[in-house]
Amino acid sequence: MKRAGRKWDEIREVKITRDFLQNATGSALIEMGKTRVLCTATLENRVPGFLKDSGKGWLTAEYAMLPMSTPDRISRESVRGRVGGRTHEIQRLIGRSLRAVTNLDIFGERTVYIDCDVIQADGGTRTASITGSFIALVDAFRKMKNEGIVDVFPIRDYVAAISVGLVGDSIFLDLDYAEDSGAEVDMNFVMTGGGDMVEIQGTAEGTPFSRDLMNQMLDVATKGIGDLTSKQMEILGELS
Amino acid sequence: MKRAGRKWDEIREVKITRDFLQNATGSALIEMGKTRVLCTATLENRVPGFLKDSGKGWLTAEYAMLPMSTPDRISRESVRGRVGGRTHEIQRLIGRSLRAVTNLDIFGERTVYIDCDVIQADGGTRTASITGSFIALVDAFRKMKNEGIVDVFPIRDYVAAISVGLVGDSIFLDLDYAEDSGAEVDMNFVMTGGGDMVEIQGTAEGTPFSRDLMNQMLDVATKGIGDLTSKQMEILGELS
Amino acid sequence: MKRAGRKWDEIREVKITRDFLQNATGSALIEMGKTRVLCTATLENRVPGFLKDSGKGWLTAEYAMLPMSTPDRISRESVRGRVGGRTHEIQRLIGRSLRAVTNLDIFGERTVYIDCDVIQADGGTRTASITGSFIALVDAFRKMKNEGIVDVFPIRDYVAAISVGLVGDSIFLDLDYAEDSGAEVDMNFVMTGGGDMVEIQGTAEGTPFSRDLMNQMLDVATKGIGDLTSKQMEILGELS
Amino acid sequence: MKRAGRKWDEIREVKITRDFLQNATGSALIEMGKTRVLCTATLENRVPGFLKDSGKGWLTAEYAMLPMSTPDRISRESVRGRVGGRTHEIQRLIGRSLRAVTNLDIFGERTVYIDCDVIQADGGTRTASITGSFIALVDAFRKMKNEGIVDVFPIRDYVAAISVGLVGDSIFLDLDYAEDSGAEVDMNFVMTGGGDMVEIQGTAEGTPFSRDLMNQMLDVATKGIGDLTSKQMEILGELS
Amino acid sequence: MKRAGRKWDEIREVKITRDFLQNATGSALIEMGKTRVLCTATLENRVPGFLKDSGKGWLTAEYAMLPMSTPDRISRESVRGRVGGRTHEIQRLIGRSLRAVTNLDIFGERTVYIDCDVIQADGGTRTASITGSFIALVDAFRKMKNEGIVDVFPIRDYVAAISVGLVGDSIFLDLDYAEDSGAEVDMNFVMTGGGDMVEIQGTAEGTPFSRDLMNQMLDVATKGIGDLTSKQMEILGELS
Amino acid sequence: MKRAGRKWDEIREVKITRDFLQNATGSALIEMGKTRVLCTATLENRVPGFLKDSGKGWLTAEYAMLPMSTPDRISRESVRGRVGGRTHEIQRLIGRSLRAVTNLDIFGERTVYIDCDVIQADGGTRTASITGSFIALVDAFRKMKNEGIVDVFPIRDYVAAISVGLVGDSIFLDLDYAEDSGAEVDMNFVMTGGGDMVEIQGTAEGTPFSRDLMNQMLDVATKGIGDLTSKQMEILGELS
Repeated sequence: MKRAGRKWDEIREVKITRDFLQNATGSALIEMGKTRVLCTATLENRVPGFLKDSGKGWLTAEYAMLPMSTPDRISRESVRGRVGGRTHEIQRLIGRSLRAVTNLDIFGERTVYIDCDVIQADGGTRTASITGSFIALVDAFRKMKNEGIVDVFPIRDYVAAISVGLVGDSIFLDLDYAEDSGAEVDMNFVMTGGGDMVEIQGTAEGTPFSRDLMNQMLDVATKGIGDLTSKQMEILGELS
Repeated sequence: MKRAGRKWDEIREVKITRDFLQNATGSALIEMGKTRVLCTATLENRVPGFLKDSGKGWLTAEYAMLPMSTPDRISRESVRGRVGGRTHEIQRLIGRSLRAVTNLDIFGERTVYIDCDVIQADGGTRTASITGSFIALVDAFRKMKNEGIVDVFPIRDYVAAISVGLVGDSIFLDLDYAEDSGAEVDMNFVMTGGGDMVEIQGTAEGTPFSRDLMNQMLDVATKGIGDLTSKQMEILGELS
Repeated sequence: MKRAGRKWDEIREVKITRDFLQNATGSALIEMGKTRVLCTATLENRVPGFLKDSGKGWLTAEYAMLPMSTPDRISRESVRGRVGGRTHEIQRLIGRSLRAVTNLDIFGERTVYIDCDVIQADGGTRTASITGSFIALVDAFRKMKNEGIVDVFPIRDYVAAISVGLVGDSIFLDLDYAEDSGAEVDMNFVMTGGGDMVEIQGTAEGTPFSRDLMNQMLDVATKGIGDLTSKQMEILGELS
Repeated sequence: MKRAGRKWDEIREVKITRDFLQNATGSALIEMGKTRVLCTATLENRVPGFLKDSGKGWLTAEYAMLPMSTPDRISRESVRGRVGGRTHEIQRLIGRSLRAVTNLDIFGERTVYIDCDVIQADGGTRTASITGSFIALVDAFRKMKNEGIVDVFPIRDYVAAISVGLVGDSIFLDLDYAEDSGAEVDMNFVMTGGGDMVEIQGTAEGTPFSRDLMNQMLDVATKGIGDLTSKQMEILGELS
Repeated sequence: MKRAGRKWDEIREVKITRDFLQNATGSALIEMGKTRVLCTATLENRVPGFLKDSGKGWLTAEYAMLPMSTPDRISRESVRGRVGGRTHEIQRLIGRSLRAVTNLDIFGERTVYIDCDVIQADGGTRTASITGSFIALVDAFRKMKNEGIVDVFPIRDYVAAISVGLVGDSIFLDLDYAEDSGAEVDMNFVMTGGGDMVEIQGTAEGTPFSRDLMNQMLDVATKGIGDLTSKQMEILGELS
Repeated sequence: MKRAGRKWDEIREVKITRDFLQNATGSALIEMGKTRVLCTATLENRVPGFLKDSGKGWLTAEYAMLPMSTPDRISRESVRGRVGGRTHEIQRLIGRSLRAVTNLDIFGERTVYIDCDVIQADGGTRTASITGSFIALVDAFRKMKNEGIVDVFPIRDYVAAISVGLVGDSIFLDLDYAEDSGAEVDMNFVMTGGGDMVEIQGTAEGTPFSRDLMNQMLDVATKGIGDLTSKQMEILGELS
């Protein structure tokens, strides 16, 4: 299957606008093609119950979609009165991914709230959320360090995320919504700037897949993550 | 009390970006000073139970704030599991205001969903929601008319909204958050392009107010609505 | 349009039964025509979080309708699992109206709970709730003062509420349910004994209304509030 | 233990006001001493899912307490967002008790809603609810029969309820709140006019009780039910 | 009506497996015929609000059915978002029954949680829950005493429960599901090892029942409870 | 790090009891070491909304833990009123895994409900749920085929799941709870009998991991899945 408009191993155009919101400690609007996610990072002076008196901090994420981010209006989870399964799954993934590069021991009993609000959805909202939130997170900790609230910069490495799919018999990097809907296999990779893996999630939507195919998908994902990390480095410079 | 940066009877800078979202039938990002609200209008082919088989349509609105739209992060209503009282009050006001200029009898058993999502809050989010949603609503019905889904254009008049407050002993038009927090009296006006009233809500936060004061507030509100209607006309041209 | 049974600027027969309940600190059953609301005022020794350690008190209101208060049985909000938008709007109005005449600084960190339970609904339940709760509130504070719990009597002025509507082309004071259902314009006024305004809420259900019409409605509302305040004074005597 | 004010086997003064509400098909305010419960019966033209297309009707009950029906204000179940265990237990009991004397086969696929709202609570609210709802139920079916909606009168027998308790070492009939709080054993009996049992519920709050004691309690309950049935007969006359 | 497989006054085969779960302080799987309930008892170091600083302990119970414990899959109460009325009624009964034989004053401000999870339901799940939980409760307190957490053994007497029903015109002891579904009268008895009553609940599902019939049902229940208590004694030996 | 009691690449003792429950179409109790999960499969004659009139079937899964399945009692999700994020994540995984080997097109508009209830938890409950549910699913479809409800057997391949973790610097297969708590990397693999992958989920709890390490973990997972598939084949024989 031939891909329209870009090469099979090419990510969509990425645009990141820092400091999109004046109230969040750190914020970034990330656009990957038509997908747009508003990411913020905020520090609060308390931790969940299981960390009380531990001296350690925490990082947690919330994810939501605006009703009109998709072609068919989706009803608000506030109106339905409960947060759905897909939302839970995604926000847990975002939280784990960012915690993996954050030193939770050195900013006291504080919680970082990551909020990812999807303004427009065209595939890859969970991976864009991770890549964009990283920018907001770094900016938040830099502000904290400048204000003397945090002594040591707690981010250890870059982190970014990308999807890869098997569409028909072709492997495509960074699926848009139409491609994702028809994919046989759907994988999401979260990796560090150093090329190590933080999260790997693969699902056979149709037919189970071989180890060989998985390796090919991992190859192209590694390339895509590299492109995203370069973009992040260009924006943020050295981590400190 | 002297006002910093603008005159007592002056509205904040207004900026409206049409077609902000590709998926909504109509959409507009309205910015009044630092307040930013994303407004969309979407038509669905069903009506609430009380209108089944009536041949009439309906218009309803939902309003929400992003967690980091305010200086202190507010928890999501989806997480709390219920829509709060202030949200209910505001979305009911938006719905009534737009219904007042919409002919619900001529677009069949369909419901217009107005979604107002506050990206950044600096006072006047409910009034900005009404003024901005009007743009999205007109654009949505124009698209419907072009596509032949609606025969007759169902909007009868312009509608816009503005706040007026008594801060100290001064009347201020279009309060920002800091002014609103300290206001003795807080009024919101919704008016048509023809200068008639659609909604009027006044509250004595501190001391009850005289009829004379109310009249002065109404005078300046009329001026403010006029400025907003001019802006809307500039964007939309004649209603049809 | 001619009104059946009473003049256009006449309120319905008002009957107020004090101390209707033995357990509430203050209680009153208010009947306006066929509308009957049971109002109570109770003091609790705690305040909401935002007032902790402020030395100030608070007043809040809850409103509910019995399932059979209306011709068609309405389902209980406890069964539906959530408090609806209309209820929220009304109880916030009641709370603001009574706070406007109450000095919250002089009865310590206590909360007054106002409970308005509609036994029978025939229009004007929110305005009757305000007028009736005022009686319960004064009685509650008098009891508190007699028992030495409160030193200074914290009510500054009388407060009462009334509706006015445009039915056909006639202005009617104090609408019953049938009149309210067909009203073009629906306004609610809350005013003090001194004739100042505490809340004003006007809604164009059908056609937007002119400033001139609003002024006529305000005139007759002022008369109606005067009648209610006289009734309250007759019952309560001087405020202290 | 000597009982103050009435004999050990004497029920409190009973007062029943029929047609207390204009909107319910049948309604009654029952007062037993200081306990006051507003009971209504309403017919709706639908049945629960398990009776669809069965040709049979249903009867269900809801029970609630006003916040200030008790000395300490109880929070509304609508605010808590769920109906509590005690409420569930009581409304299930009321429903079963009235179904036991109602022929559900002869009024079509309709549901009778019994609503019991406790205005003031001083012990015995569940038993008063049953005794009072019976009046509302009979009145509702009589109205239905007069209007030709129901052909045959579907109530087979009188039903009333009473509590008996062991307080200290004395058996008391029809406990008030103070007596109930200190009772060792607490029993509720629901019986027909013919003296048969519909429901019997006994609980050892403190020490388990002997069969002999249970028999003594049943004796005095039978007397109490007889008094209530006489009262009901006096009000309603023959059942038809 | 002749009963298939066992005598009218015979309980089903009872099998109790102690220490079924490694994590609970006490646990027992009780099987009565095809009915299987997993019962656990666990102590936590806190009490409900109304017992704070009272020096007293508490015991509470929760009851649930697995979705496939019944022939038709029942939806989970977690999915429905609320605990139903029948569940509330049953878990309150279990709690009261076990509290009646437990000295709550001598194990400090601790709460015993009784969990009854129905694995397979064939009638009598509430009575089996009580009989089985008693085993778990005794084992939990014995472990506590051995570990020195509790000084004095707080269980005063055995407690067990059984159902009796009128099926057609026959009295049957310990109804299975098929018998229960067709029963005219349904009674549940909870009694101590000493033969005193802790709870008695009787319901006329069809026709109201006479006192004479109730006495016959109580006779056979007493026999059934005796059989269960013997079984408990055989397993547990003397209470201490 | 040396592993106590079994080799690093050895799974725990597996025991599967078929037909554990009489009411479910298919049921199996799976025990892996001390972890015990009760799995059932049931067919209902309806599909979710998005499949109405598609002619296709669906398979969905629910997962829950008994309160005392873990050392510290966990509160019921029914009591908390909402299904938590971890539960959602797990039940979505179970559903996807079984759908991957099921032909949803050939059993009509029916839904298979998989229920996994954890009786005792000692690590690996989600993987045990998948392995055990497969047995219940096959048994359910065999019964359906025997009864003529389903023509063609819709299961295409075996499916089983296993965890692998990096504990200290050692790779361990099939982690128990203690091992899982301290793992640096935690992966779950779901594979078919043919050795292809259905789901792969890897998480760096501590340090991100290299591709080389992932390959070693995949190697040992493949061995573990093979052991489980052999066990399944032994029990079920050929798929048909």
